[in-house]
Amino acid sequence: MTDALRSIDPRTGKEAGDAVEATTTIELAVIAERARAAAVDYAALPLAARAACLRAVSIALGEHADQVIATADAETALGTARLTGELARTRVQLELFADAVESGAFLEIIIDHADPAAKPTPRPDLRRMLVPLGPVAVYAASNFPLAFSVPGGDTASALAAGCPVIVKAHEGHPRTSELCARIVGDALMAAGAPDGTFAVVHGFEAGRELITHPAVKAAGFTGSLNGGRALHSLASARPEPIPFFGELGSINPVFATPGAVAERGAELAAAFVASATLGSGQFCTKPGVLFLPAGHGLEGELADAAAKASPHPLLHARIRDAYLDGAAALAGLPGVKTLAEPGADGEGFGVRPGLFQVGVADFLDNAEALLTECFGPVSVVVDHGPEDIARILELLPGSLTGSVHLADAESTGTFVQGLLPALAAKVGRVVVNGWPTGVAVTAAMQHGGPWPAATSSQYTSVGETAMRRFLRPVAYQDTPAELLPELLRDEAAVTVPRRVSQAFGT
Amino acid sequence: MTDALRSIDPRTGKEAGDAVEATTTIELAVIAERARAAAVDYAALPLAARAACLRAVSIALGEHADQVIATADAETALGTARLTGELARTRVQLELFADAVESGAFLEIIIDHADPAAKPTPRPDLRRMLVPLGPVAVYAASNFPLAFSVPGGDTASALAAGCPVIVKAHEGHPRTSELCARIVGDALMAAGAPDGTFAVVHGFEAGRELITHPAVKAAGFTGSLNGGRALHSLASARPEPIPFFGELGSINPVFATPGAVAERGAELAAAFVASATLGSGQFCTKPGVLFLPAGHGLEGELADAAAKASPHPLLHARIRDAYLDGAAALAGLPGVKTLAEPGADGEGFGVRPGLFQVGVADFLDNAEALLTECFGPVSVVVDHGPEDIARILELLPGSLTGSVHLADAESTGTFVQGLLPALAAKVGRVVVNGWPTGVAVTAAMQHGGPWPAATSSQYTSVGETAMRRFLRPVAYQDTPAELLPELLRDEAAVTVPRRVSQAFGT
Repeated sequence: MTDALRSIDPRTGKEAGDAVEATTTIELAVIAERARAAAVDYAALPLAARAACLRAVSIALGEHADQVIATADAETALGTARLTGELARTRVQLELFADAVESGAFLEIIIDHADPAAKPTPRPDLRRMLVPLGPVAVYAASNFPLAFSVPGGDTASALAAGCPVIVKAHEGHPRTSELCARIVGDALMAAGAPDGTFAVVHGFEAGRELITHPAVKAAGFTGSLNGGRALHSLASARPEPIPFFGELGSINPVFATPGAVAERGAELAAAFVASATLGSGQFCTKPGVLFLPAGHGLEGELADAAAKASPHPLLHARIRDAYLDGAAALAGLPGVKTLAEPGADGEGFGVRPGLFQVGVADFLDNAEALLTECFGPVSVVVDHGPEDIARILELLPGSLTGSVHLADAESTGTFVQGLLPALAAKVGRVVVNGWPTGVAVTAAMQHGGPWPAATSSQYTSVGETAMRRFLRPVAYQDTPAELLPELLRDEAAVTVPRRVSQAFGT
Repeated sequence: MTDALRSIDPRTGKEAGDAVEATTTIELAVIAERARAAAVDYAALPLAARAACLRAVSIALGEHADQVIATADAETALGTARLTGELARTRVQLELFADAVESGAFLEIIIDHADPAAKPTPRPDLRRMLVPLGPVAVYAASNFPLAFSVPGGDTASALAAGCPVIVKAHEGHPRTSELCARIVGDALMAAGAPDGTFAVVHGFEAGRELITHPAVKAAGFTGSLNGGRALHSLASARPEPIPFFGELGSINPVFATPGAVAERGAELAAAFVASATLGSGQFCTKPGVLFLPAGHGLEGELADAAAKASPHPLLHARIRDAYLDGAAALAGLPGVKTLAEPGADGEGFGVRPGLFQVGVADFLDNAEALLTECFGPVSVVVDHGPEDIARILELLPGSLTGSVHLADAESTGTFVQGLLPALAAKVGRVVVNGWPTGVAVTAAMQHGGPWPAATSSQYTSVGETAMRRFLRPVAYQDTPAELLPELLRDEAAVTVPRRVSQAFGT
């Protein structure tokens, strides 16, 4: 435990820039109470004003783009091009949520007028809408210092839902977090959000205290299985348990059919390695395992593609160490052949990618180890026959994604027709003839999945419906119009979509 | 622990009818594996076929009405009139869910067509729908042997969501549970549901084994805070945690304004006691506390109404004992006056209602004890002034409901305008000029609330949206039409409501 968070340059492994002070217990308590106090007023802002807050944050991030990107690059070594794209994505997210807030569809309003003739008993007038849960704790990720960090998707969706946000900064980029904290906080205040709507805290202890603070009513998390499970347990064991939405580990299996390999095997091999090593394999959607028909003959192409990937520094020393340990453990499993040897390479936390190959018999014997996520640029190719597919699908753990590559004519075949539903039972998103990396920010996106991909498969952390995590329904029974929230009144002026007395059948 | 569940007549306190065998570990494992095997085929039934299953259960319950009601009455002493109404409600629930299944709105389908021009990166084609979680464990309640038990709302909503159901029967009505198990199971099989879609298990150990069985993917529960918390912990601590939806304890506060008391004080006093003693106070929505303006002078009316309520047997010995202990504990708190003295009365598990009164100073000193649910016909009247309301609202725990009684002209006043939002922050349903007992089965109903009313305030256990508890989203990316679930294809034949490429702003 330390009282200051050191900012490390992954390209050198050395401290660079000022350390950031850890948040003290007293500071955290003050921040949490301010969030509690802000919750009612922030929730009460008209939807247009709430949307304006989100847009103000997007604009402010744009105005400070150069400084944000430079600071993030110094702490993550992700490169200016990637971070420029990530900042654009972060801003698009905020704007998407602003649009969603204004549309009001997320309120899921249902109005059932009274029905004195209803059986078995008369029905009262009932009007339901979703309301914000209250202050939300957001545990930032290391691998997206913007899009899944201080100004990221969890923050944007919680603010959109009408909840104050307290971000636990990731220790991998404390200065970026501080800079974004100021930008986001100032923009929200200037746009009219109440004091206390947004804050950032630093340090391991602050993270523990945050999840157990009574003012906090929900939490979003992106990170490791162990960290997420520990915080989830703390959230569940509180005197008042709170919902914890963790996005944890995912192996993201990819299947290529014999037809696809025959049609474009070399292309698939290169594209798989590109996806698996993108951002140095530090994506939650990195494809960690590729299932190929035995005898595919693509070992050379796969090895060449991996050899061509430049060494790149991982985000920090702990990730580098875990990568090297995890890759070594994979290499040591029975029957595992090395197509590309992982290892430390280059300056700082630099590594080169690893690629392994294993036959189906050895795979089945060690499936749990081979299907556990190893963060960083390492993947396993499994050679198998069509008769093994059912058993493989059974052994797959829950994942964010599952991908299938087909030949043109294959999508009507029985084998493929059976493969997709079995895969869909294990994942949040099925991808056909594409790669899991790259998560589109749209209304239909599902970024989540069965355990261990997420603590709750019922929600997404990306896309418009991510707001649903931070909302709960309230119904008003027989309430006079003047006491109803404005959006629940009968007045025609309401433009928010509502389902009104849409009685079924009976 | 016993190997048989004895069926007790609450009117005599004596065993009546055959005991029911507890489910053994091996039997439970077989049942769970059959549910797992049924899950895929049951989920794959067309929506119309799934709806037909629900309707078949409703029809079968109607055909066996006399036997069901007689058996339930013998085990619960709730009376033929009440149980006839409860069976009607149970059937209406099944039919409501059948209608909801056919409408398909619950699938929350969103289709975003590909957008090659999207910023910052081109968007793929994404199609999202909700899919069933898999086998659901339902923990039946004691107080509704039909509507919240074997054929009740949790069972109906899980079957509607496309999930096999295993009910843990309540030990208070084992014979009713067995009878309903046969009726429901036979009806489902005859309607085409796969073998394993439905089963009932008995016994405490079977309940523990069920929640930890790997085939079970979610659980619904209605019951005590302690029982719910224990099962919730087991569900969260599994190697693969599963969602647990518990409806636990609720105090259901009622406020009457000075205006309302002046206008119709005597009527309110009588109606409050009627609601608090309905079904012998054995409702989760029983109003447990009534806040009245000091000097209301209604002590006589309240006491008279309570005295007039006939003694009635509680559901079983444990509930009777807990009621007597809880009521005695309330009576012993400082400053608590007895308006009606609770106690054992009549045959079997019979009791008479208790009603207490306390001033605001003593209330504030012992708020936690006075605001803890005591199951059965006991309530507390709190005399207070307008200056106490803010503090009272702050101290209120989460509840299923909160009710306010107003005078005609009061709904535009500042005091009342402030009271409702503060109450809405603590409850799932706000009731104006009405009583919380009687939970309408409609789309807009919210039966749930902040802890300890429910383990998750984000869901309801009554009404159409209860299905959402047992569903999760899956998105398909760039998937050829012939590999998509039928309802996600572009074909015009689909009548299910879908949100298609409804891009906002950007």
